[in-house]
Amino acid sequence: MAADNNDLFDSSDSVRSGKPLAHVQVASFPGPIHLTTGGLLPELKIAYETYGELSPNKDNAVLIFHALSGDSHVAAHDDKDDPGWWDLLVGPGKSVDTNRYFVICANVLGGCRGTTGPDSVNPQTGKKYGVDFPPINVADIVDVQRRLVESLGIERLLAIIGGSLGGLMALDWGTRYPESVAGIAAIATGARMTTQALAFDVVARNAIMSDPHFCGGEYYDKEVGPSTGLAIARMLGHITYLSQESMNRKFNADRNVGRKIDTSFETKFSVGSYLAYQGDKFVERFDANSYLTLTLALDAFDLGSDRDRLAAALRRSMCRWLFVSFSSDWLFPSFQARELVDAAISSDKRVSYCNIKSDCGHDAFLLENELPVYGGLVRSFLHHLSLDWRPEYAERRRKLHDGSRLPNAPFKHRLDYDRILSLIPPKTKILDLGCGKGELLERLKARGHERLVGVEMEESLVLKCAEKGLDVLQLDMNDGLKSFSDHQFDFVVLSKTLQTIRNVEVVLEEMLRVGTRAIVSFPNLGYRKFREELDAGRAPRTDPRPGKSWYNTSDVRFLTLLDFEEYCRMKGYRIYRKVPMDSLSGAIVDVNENENADMVIVVLGR
Amino acid sequence: MAADNNDLFDSSDSVRSGKPLAHVQVASFPGPIHLTTGGLLPELKIAYETYGELSPNKDNAVLIFHALSGDSHVAAHDDKDDPGWWDLLVGPGKSVDTNRYFVICANVLGGCRGTTGPDSVNPQTGKKYGVDFPPINVADIVDVQRRLVESLGIERLLAIIGGSLGGLMALDWGTRYPESVAGIAAIATGARMTTQALAFDVVARNAIMSDPHFCGGEYYDKEVGPSTGLAIARMLGHITYLSQESMNRKFNADRNVGRKIDTSFETKFSVGSYLAYQGDKFVERFDANSYLTLTLALDAFDLGSDRDRLAAALRRSMCRWLFVSFSSDWLFPSFQARELVDAAISSDKRVSYCNIKSDCGHDAFLLENELPVYGGLVRSFLHHLSLDWRPEYAERRRKLHDGSRLPNAPFKHRLDYDRILSLIPPKTKILDLGCGKGELLERLKARGHERLVGVEMEESLVLKCAEKGLDVLQLDMNDGLKSFSDHQFDFVVLSKTLQTIRNVEVVLEEMLRVGTRAIVSFPNLGYRKFREELDAGRAPRTDPRPGKSWYNTSDVRFLTLLDFEEYCRMKGYRIYRKVPMDSLSGAIVDVNENENADMVIVVLGR
Repeated sequence: MAADNNDLFDSSDSVRSGKPLAHVQVASFPGPIHLTTGGLLPELKIAYETYGELSPNKDNAVLIFHALSGDSHVAAHDDKDDPGWWDLLVGPGKSVDTNRYFVICANVLGGCRGTTGPDSVNPQTGKKYGVDFPPINVADIVDVQRRLVESLGIERLLAIIGGSLGGLMALDWGTRYPESVAGIAAIATGARMTTQALAFDVVARNAIMSDPHFCGGEYYDKEVGPSTGLAIARMLGHITYLSQESMNRKFNADRNVGRKIDTSFETKFSVGSYLAYQGDKFVERFDANSYLTLTLALDAFDLGSDRDRLAAALRRSMCRWLFVSFSSDWLFPSFQARELVDAAISSDKRVSYCNIKSDCGHDAFLLENELPVYGGLVRSFLHHLSLDWRPEYAERRRKLHDGSRLPNAPFKHRLDYDRILSLIPPKTKILDLGCGKGELLERLKARGHERLVGVEMEESLVLKCAEKGLDVLQLDMNDGLKSFSDHQFDFVVLSKTLQTIRNVEVVLEEMLRVGTRAIVSFPNLGYRKFREELDAGRAPRTDPRPGKSWYNTSDVRFLTLLDFEEYCRMKGYRIYRKVPMDSLSGAIVDVNENENADMVIVVLGR
Repeated sequence: MAADNNDLFDSSDSVRSGKPLAHVQVASFPGPIHLTTGGLLPELKIAYETYGELSPNKDNAVLIFHALSGDSHVAAHDDKDDPGWWDLLVGPGKSVDTNRYFVICANVLGGCRGTTGPDSVNPQTGKKYGVDFPPINVADIVDVQRRLVESLGIERLLAIIGGSLGGLMALDWGTRYPESVAGIAAIATGARMTTQALAFDVVARNAIMSDPHFCGGEYYDKEVGPSTGLAIARMLGHITYLSQESMNRKFNADRNVGRKIDTSFETKFSVGSYLAYQGDKFVERFDANSYLTLTLALDAFDLGSDRDRLAAALRRSMCRWLFVSFSSDWLFPSFQARELVDAAISSDKRVSYCNIKSDCGHDAFLLENELPVYGGLVRSFLHHLSLDWRPEYAERRRKLHDGSRLPNAPFKHRLDYDRILSLIPPKTKILDLGCGKGELLERLKARGHERLVGVEMEESLVLKCAEKGLDVLQLDMNDGLKSFSDHQFDFVVLSKTLQTIRNVEVVLEEMLRVGTRAIVSFPNLGYRKFREELDAGRAPRTDPRPGKSWYNTSDVRFLTLLDFEEYCRMKGYRIYRKVPMDSLSGAIVDVNENENADMVIVVLGR
């Protein structure tokens, strides 16, 4: 399952054979089933698998949605079982810990792996549906999953996790059935397909439908089906699941060495024989009508084509959101996840986001390479969802974490945080820019603030925040704070970070747009020690970290308290509070502040 | 021809109808023609067009290579003529000025627009070649073009210009026939196809060859050809020519509104009907066997799969190179152009490079949007090639530009440049990092230095350097100087730029790897005025430009002369010369230099 497998033909998505799976259960529902497209199904069968045990309170159910060509077999049930498509993530002790959670995964409506789809027998005719299978929307696919969940007696899911098509389904569920899920992790997905992705689907469908063996979809009783068209569709799909980099890595070394495989397709180049193999394999286990039905549902899905509509859709949701994208994914590029994040933020939802650095393309969410990050994010997300669910846990945690009041605070003590905390009234809404490991936010959380959001660029720190159960967004604030609405927060904090940012004007302006007040702390270049250093002919060393000097410090802005005050006058910002500090002692400086304070905390407003 | 045409169907590449073109000339060559693949052609016809007039010395010929599906009609010959595929670039007064240059463009071997290809009649059988057309390489395609050029009596071309497939051809020509061309502009191309691009070609060929009407290539006498497969191949191609952004811009507004067009393909979505239209249109004017022949030639082309092999190939060339890539091109991503640049540099070729910021994808080189940049680069490139060609011009220019010796120098006077010039011995090889408009390089050029290379990030400044005829590379030096070999230059200059770079350690280390000496100039924070500013409680203003202050200066590193000297000791760099300056008067400071010099120029070595 690794990205760089030596065996050319053992890719993440090709392990599944066409044979029936053990452990699959089937839920049957009598018809007629009404579809959002106006269509009707005379009956419904859902193939699904479950893992772990449902708790007595039924508060530990996690529903997983598979991608286009997946099935209910998300993980192996035991050592003898066939591998599951997300064994990396799901199982005992794994990120989705089946010792702790009750995991459900069902084949989608319109699929061909056990749930009713075009290749199922229509009880009214005794023949397979074929072209009589009605068109469906993502909403219909989701409604079928919901029927299953209800039939299992589950009123509210702890979480839904879905990648790719599964991500679209998760978005649909969260916005249409808000009460029934506590948290949604939508991975490598978007509010709708990009035009480019849509275009690939169009070409794939054209290849299937123009295959002379397609016969308008009525090929089930024929000797040969549209296997050529379906294989070509799959080849195309495979290209979009990989990245430039991963394809080069996989196929460059023996580029011109085609594999000898039994196929009617071109095998001249290594990548060509790979695609031929993948195409041929796919035909054994997938149905062309399913491919058409599902891609048409995908392509028609549209949660909202602009920010307002998207925000209106997400406003209906009531869950916590986790969005994950991968930097080299071009089927669902990260800007699509950002659109979702922005929409969720602007409707004041709890949301975390990480654009994971990866060169594995769309497939990254199924591969081991980035598992430490996306697996860690999912693990923390589920853990804190289950804590939040149970009031008694939340209470226990509140006591445990209310460190700011205790003599033996579990926090590494930062005096500037003490000061900043003292400037923030209870219950206010806080945005912390450059939040690092989330120390300040954790202390605020312990004090009972409900609306806390962190922004941080570094992946490892984003993970730390997620472990603390904080809402954290991996964004570059130098691009502005477009994700946030005007006056969405009472305070926006920029603590010891001003000196590291390029676009000072943009960031400060944006802070005062999204917050009523801004709290900014920065090292004061006017501090006596810095003056003395320059008097001695050396550049002041404002960065106290060992080994950091003029050539390698992340500090790129140098200013004194006077400079900052002048800046505020020039911009028309009002300084509400000014706390010049001696950061070693924590004392407030009240004489000759521009000379005696090494750090300044300022509360700004308009 | 604009990128954002309101008419969905009037795209850059679809204007050409299938009808025969006026102005096409045909050159015939008797066979047998031996091919590099071992194949033979019994005869050869080349369809070509020419523009402008060949000069008496035959020193103004510019050969243009078309892309995969192009033809000889690069530009309209007059107002009544059909539009040409590169009318934007080629014509009277345009970047490739047909009043000045004699332009030749021929249909490629294996094509289907007049030059011998699979759909030509084989004189030996009286029938079309079909599958009997031998496989060809890019080298064969190039050799045919060369035959044409020789038949026109031209021994040496002023320039070759080619984009995409045409770029590969240009690379092949330049490395196999070095004496016969003075300059090559290779645009939106690479040393070989990426694996991803190769994969798309494989799928396209599979679509054509599995079309039941393909009949193993013998479809010419059939009622129906493999039009479905060819159309699908073209749809795929079209996706790769556009970018995510340009597709969204073009099709998002009316995404779900398919156009009513007469086609057998899907027209549900606006992008779907566009692709159907493009596919159907293409079939009218292109031959499936040509598509197979040409893409196989493209896919097999490989100038060198790693840096050493690529450098070995480019080492054989004798021309000046201009490489242009476009930031959103994913068919020939910019890293491919960088590979070519690196290889050319490491074999000490004269080369310029620009990665033009664009959201138009691969098609950008045929569109108006970025024309000011790529057109400007091509115009300057040709202009200076033709100056270089004629010794009398070169002489005149040398006199004109030898400004450093004249009282009324045409250069805006920078005293630091005077000093730097005085530190550089004649005839030495110079790399100027952050070269800006190329002022220093121009003065060095006037002094007769032959090997001068500039590195600059800003597109507009790269253009300015190109206008001066300088070799300039658009690279970010913070990523290191990987393009350059060890000790490739005598001096590497970093003039008033040190204070703006993030990766100081990387850049200085790299300077002393690729240069024997480094010349570094920087503002000295130890200067009395700066100390006084800090003493007065304000951050020193080292950036003298009006309106620049701590929050918006591009200066991000602050150092004194002492700091720099300590740094050199720490790194084991030897300071060969140190020129502390008063940059207003130009005087050298010899007392209390760390206090009295506002700027320092240092010559470093190991």
